Amino acid sequence: MRTIHINSAIQSYDIVIGEKLRHQIKDYLPKNYSSILVITDENVVYLYGNDLLQALKGNKVFLEVVPPGETSKSIQVYYQLLTKALEYSLDRQSLIIAFGGGVVGDLAGFVAATYMRGVDYIQVPTTILAHDSSVGGKVAINHEKGKNLIGSFYPPVQVLYDTETIQTLSLQDVRSGYAELLKEAMLANENFFTQLLSISLEQIAMKDLITALETGINIKATIVEQDEREAGIRKYLNLGHTLGHAIETRLGYGKISHGEAVAIGILFAMYVSQQELQVKLPLKQVKEWLTENNYPIALSFEQIDDLVEFMMHDKKVINSEIQMVLLKKIGEPVLHNINKQQIKKYLHSFIMSEVKG
Amino acid sequence: MRTIHINSAIQSYDIVIGEKLRHQIKDYLPKNYSSILVITDENVVYLYGNDLLQALKGNKVFLEVVPPGETSKSIQVYYQLLTKALEYSLDRQSLIIAFGGGVVGDLAGFVAATYMRGVDYIQVPTTILAHDSSVGGKVAINHEKGKNLIGSFYPPVQVLYDTETIQTLSLQDVRSGYAELLKEAMLANENFFTQLLSISLEQIAMKDLITALETGINIKATIVEQDEREAGIRKYLNLGHTLGHAIETRLGYGKISHGEAVAIGILFAMYVSQQELQVKLPLKQVKEWLTENNYPIALSFEQIDDLVEFMMHDKKVINSEIQMVLLKKIGEPVLHNINKQQIKKYLHSFIMSEVKG
Ligand SMILES: NC(=O)c1ccc[n+]([C@@H]2O[C@H](COP(=O)([O-])OP(=O)(O)OC[C@H]3O[C@@H](n4cnc5c(N)ncnc54)[C@H](O)[C@@H]3O)[C@@H](O)[C@H]2O)c1
Ligand SMILES: NC(=O)c1ccc[n+]([C@@H]2O[C@H](COP(=O)([O-])OP(=O)(O)OC[C@H]3O[C@@H](n4cnc5c(N)ncnc54)[C@H](O)[C@@H]3O)[C@@H](O)[C@H]2O)c1
Ligand SMILES: [Zn+2]
Ligand SMILES: [Zn+2]
Repeated sequence: MRTIHINSAIQSYDIVIGEKLRHQIKDYLPKNYSSILVITDENVVYLYGNDLLQALKGNKVFLEVVPPGETSKSIQVYYQLLTKALEYSLDRQSLIIAFGGGVVGDLAGFVAATYMRGVDYIQVPTTILAHDSSVGGKVAINHEKGKNLIGSFYPPVQVLYDTETIQTLSLQDVRSGYAELLKEAMLANENFFTQLLSISLEQIAMKDLITALETGINIKATIVEQDEREAGIRKYLNLGHTLGHAIETRLGYGKISHGEAVAIGILFAMYVSQQELQVKLPLKQVKEWLTENNYPIALSFEQIDDLVEFMMHDKKVINSEIQMVLLKKIGEPVLHNINKQQIKKYLHSFIMSEVKG
Repeated sequence: MRTIHINSAIQSYDIVIGEKLRHQIKDYLPKNYSSILVITDENVVYLYGNDLLQALKGNKVFLEVVPPGETSKSIQVYYQLLTKALEYSLDRQSLIIAFGGGVVGDLAGFVAATYMRGVDYIQVPTTILAHDSSVGGKVAINHEKGKNLIGSFYPPVQVLYDTETIQTLSLQDVRSGYAELLKEAMLANENFFTQLLSISLEQIAMKDLITALETGINIKATIVEQDEREAGIRKYLNLGHTLGHAIETRLGYGKISHGEAVAIGILFAMYVSQQELQVKLPLKQVKEWLTENNYPIALSFEQIDDLVEFMMHDKKVINSEIQMVLLKKIGEPVLHNINKQQIKKYLHSFIMSEVKG
């Protein structure tokens, strides 16, 4: 069991990482709550719902289960959860537990942020990807025009990462979460990057995965502590996300996993970096690794116009220019503004280079 | 022109009060914004829309007009405004201006709090009531089950109170805003209280009203500075609001003005104070003043059950008890927990005493 402490101007908290923590949640409640609402999804409740409810015995507990996947991060599901919270008479001294992947974490976190102007919540992540989403206090739901456009900065009171739960993840979800690890490595740690690419996902050992997760959490924690509200260096964590989010929105929420979309975005960011910054990056190596590990990386020419429109509505747009995270080299990110026409050109030549292989 | 500075842990800001400030808004923008979205309602846009738009010339300005009244503080209107903000390509460097009464302030403030995880906004209040709602950073929309149940603490970057605008208010809206002044006086300042009751609303002089407004703002500012997140003394500002909100919800949003509902709530709080705390308050005097000034103060027995249910869903409920603000005397509020049965009894005898006159 390891603990990483996060200092936050809004609310400091611990990230506790260890096996079987879901059984011990009672020991980690920071105080007595008048009632507890567990928000989870259908897959997670089936696998681990009983464990958590058992562990919470003695409290006044309510359970809300949403359909799995990105489509639950909608205004409709958000409002339904608020209605349920009211029907259960949750008061301001109540706790919400976000039990699941990044979807449940972002959604339940936004409910907690806005229910009666804010109640406490705990993140209990159950996916690899959620090592990223559960840390840093960003919560959000999607708008039909784009990902995560409705949300807040609202830190949890605790993150409890039970590493045992990730054993049941599908290979697609392993792939998805691993892409965010790759992102963190590329921002901050070349050794970590090399190590991640030396592994094949189908053969990865649990032990190695958990070590990688902790390294990833440490990188993320260091960044968000320095820049909680994303005024500066936290923006680097958006590496691959401008195009990534546009792909998710273009294909329809849930059609491609978040990490898979981000992986394409990372490749594109590397490609643009090489052009704009005149640098040489291990683009070929990353691309080969992604292909070997079955990431879907094909984009088509007819998607370009839509993708650019979605990119123009992203949170990273400033004065009609897209603020992209580029890399000078592995471990050295930089912000760079690019206009609409230029992005379009790059997307075109990027897809062209993909087609040519 | 007077300026009151508010220290806030989240974001400090100035309240500027003066005549014709709407024409000078450009001088008060704290920085350059990539674009500005003015959110207002149909009445305010008709009266003062041109003035504000003229004054903002030179900026990239968009205008969204919502129907007047409480029904606009809904999840539907909220989502529509987010959609519009996206269609106008508002980025994170944009500004939202809440131009209107408390409805527009609460609604536009919540849009600002959650659009792309938060953008700057300015409150430009145009009602007496909004002297209260524009200060302190509470923003919210309503849920069908209760008032202000969805929201955040999210301070504006500036409050610009153009006292000229209140000249066009209807008598009902003067009545509504005056009730919050009465509330502030009862919490903090007996002289102010006496003074407020010495005036008849139909004859009130602008000069006196503006002086009262400033006193009210000072009281509110002092309280929220000490307790921004309502962990302690800020709760006093809820005097009259537990029953007030229940009445608004029970009658249907907009059927009674917020301040008129609060006025009934204040009377009830005085009544309960006398019973629970064994004190003597100027209940009769307040009631007479309210009656003379045409506040609607009749409740009926058959409303009691519904009112109690709505009160049980209020933000002020803790562990199934209603936390009411009572008065030991004028200027000395106190928090007091009362259970459901007891509240029901008090409502019953309160209405009975009303009926008997
Ligand atoms: N807030 C942030 O800082 C942040 C950062 C990165 C990503 N995100 C968001 O996170 C979301 C993606 O998260 P995700 O990939 O975890 O998605 P997810 O929550 O949808 O989980 C993926 C799938 O795995 C299933 N699942 C969850 N735990 C499982 C387990 N232990 N065993 C088996 N199946 C399990 C889920 O039911 C779902 O079908 C996106 O919406 C993205 O925008 C947020
Ligand atoms: N956030 C807070 O701290 C706080 C505090 C108190 C009240 N509130 C909220 O404030 C709301 C009530 O505010 P309100 O009474 O200002 O309501 P409002 O905004 O609906 O305004 C009342 C009416 O006056 C009209 N109007 C506005 N300015 C005018 C002007 N200058 N001349 C003529 N007509 C004008 C409006 O169009 C509306 O019809 C409620 O929703 C209440 O919950 C919030
Ligand atoms: Zn991500
Ligand atoms: Zn009020």
